[in-house]
Amino acid sequence: MLADLDALARITGDEESATAVRARADEVLRPRGALGRLDEIAVWLARWQQKPTPSVDRPAVLIFAGDHGVAAEGVSAYPQSVTRAMIGALEAGIATASVMARRVGASMTVVDVGAGRPCGNIRIEPALTEAQFDSAIGSGRDAVARLGEVDLLIPGEVGIGNTTPAAAIATSLMGGEAREWVGPGTGLDELGVAHKAVVVREAVDRVGVAPPIDTLRELGGWELAAIAGAIVEARARSIPVLIDGFVVTAAILPLELAQPGFLDHCWPAHVSAEPGHRRMVERLGRLPILDLEMRLGEGSGALTAVPIVALAADAVVRVATFGEAGLA
Amino acid sequence: MLADLDALARITGDEESATAVRARADEVLRPRGALGRLDEIAVWLARWQQKPTPSVDRPAVLIFAGDHGVAAEGVSAYPQSVTRAMIGALEAGIATASVMARRVGASMTVVDVGAGRPCGNIRIEPALTEAQFDSAIGSGRDAVARLGEVDLLIPGEVGIGNTTPAAAIATSLMGGEAREWVGPGTGLDELGVAHKAVVVREAVDRVGVAPPIDTLRELGGWELAAIAGAIVEARARSIPVLIDGFVVTAAILPLELAQPGFLDHCWPAHVSAEPGHRRMVERLGRLPILDLEMRLGEGSGALTAVPIVALAADAVVRVATFGEAGLA
Repeated sequence: MLADLDALARITGDEESATAVRARADEVLRPRGALGRLDEIAVWLARWQQKPTPSVDRPAVLIFAGDHGVAAEGVSAYPQSVTRAMIGALEAGIATASVMARRVGASMTVVDVGAGRPCGNIRIEPALTEAQFDSAIGSGRDAVARLGEVDLLIPGEVGIGNTTPAAAIATSLMGGEAREWVGPGTGLDELGVAHKAVVVREAVDRVGVAPPIDTLRELGGWELAAIAGAIVEARARSIPVLIDGFVVTAAILPLELAQPGFLDHCWPAHVSAEPGHRRMVERLGRLPILDLEMRLGEGSGALTAVPIVALAADAVVRVATFGEAGLA
Repeated sequence: MLADLDALARITGDEESATAVRARADEVLRPRGALGRLDEIAVWLARWQQKPTPSVDRPAVLIFAGDHGVAAEGVSAYPQSVTRAMIGALEAGIATASVMARRVGASMTVVDVGAGRPCGNIRIEPALTEAQFDSAIGSGRDAVARLGEVDLLIPGEVGIGNTTPAAAIATSLMGGEAREWVGPGTGLDELGVAHKAVVVREAVDRVGVAPPIDTLRELGGWELAAIAGAIVEARARSIPVLIDGFVVTAAILPLELAQPGFLDHCWPAHVSAEPGHRRMVERLGRLPILDLEMRLGEGSGALTAVPIVALAADAVVRVATFGEAGLA
């Protein structure tokens, strides 16, 4: 399901639209560059929406849910049953991401990839078999395909224990010590974090050096693979994507490492408080929009940045140029 | 008009509402503190909206406009006529702030305090006489009083040359060299910035050491005084305020220095790219929400943060607690 990365990477957005927005940003009623980083976001949006009048009017959140065999190692402050409870809360509209999606006008779909059906315990075995991995990638691709008209995609996740696979992927692909990539997740204490680092180290050692996509299959899990699939489908459809926090970034980092530039249609929405996220985001080469010490998941960090992307686009497309306003 | 700062500072918001929101933030369906700095913003909003269910549904932008005698010193890249042109563009709905206000659902009112009627050239004379200052403060207060129901106030400004008085106020009240506080404004080159620093230094030397409010009258101007008035009226009415960039912050800094804690109802929306803004914001003791290298004015930085304040409130008020969701 990921064999076509190379072909997809040749979809590079519409440079003409990007150029048109860059030119207009320099002509609208304000000093050149006065909106700082917003203009670059508008240019990026134009490139991937493939139109010179980018806009955020149909954002969509896809929340992928899965359970993790490694939760049995005591790497989360919460019991595994919370994954399913959170799916219920998200669907009932009472979870954080549901409330945020309503406020920013985003549709929300929860995709249960493997809640209550834990993937392999990465400390001792692959998270997913090849067949399971392909199936999860396919779930992610299908979920995007089914959305219909979308102008900004926000992948999110719930999955008790999933900062452990995320830290394992980061450790394996970015190097360094496991403890540099491991954080409190839902709220582990210091001892818990130290134990989690040991689990991550064992998982990473088990896999050894492997190609990035194999690393994702070995160390990830249902929802992480599905997120990678969603990002692939978004590229195929030229849909711009806002990247959420630690888990989402770890899930898609293998795509960038397997095929540099593959994440050009993605913009990091924020820097998570989870240690290591800043370094992963830096690897993607774009400045995150927000830095508010958020660390929830559910796509909440990316949802918080949706209005800013919308404003960035409007501030070029809908503001008059000096010429249009009849000013010299 | 500013004689009652001391009395107004005794309006301290509703601590009970703040406490209720802080408690609820710890009980909603997510790990404690997982939204990082958003929870503190929700608590602040509850305190000043004086209710345990804060919400941003009626934000209002007030853009104060004025012209500056010091513009004759060549401190701006734009001619003075642009102030009036921008008032027209704002009212016509084609300026950056108009477009942003529409996107975030904020009402916008432009208050012409002194466009086409430049205040004194601060290099050689006071910006405003006592009577003019009182009148401008009154305009700011009245503008807020006329808004009716507002749950978040965003003061902004237009005024060609007004980063010069802003830098002069900062230099005078915060100390240091004029050149540390002076930036390109609408787009001065290096030589222009150096000249602007000389003008600022001369203005600051002319006034010498003076009480903060006198400094505002001597070195500010129409729209800066009106902004201070708006902040005073917002305090009197317990309306929370989002602080925009360099000019707005310089206009209200004298209030904080005259009466420490007076700006507790204000939250800095962003850090401007204009040099010196970061130091001024630090003086206010609260972390700004955004850091996007914006430097436009018109309230645009604060407008960009409006949806984040709205999300912060919703994410406490509208998300279920574990108890409400029937979870242990």
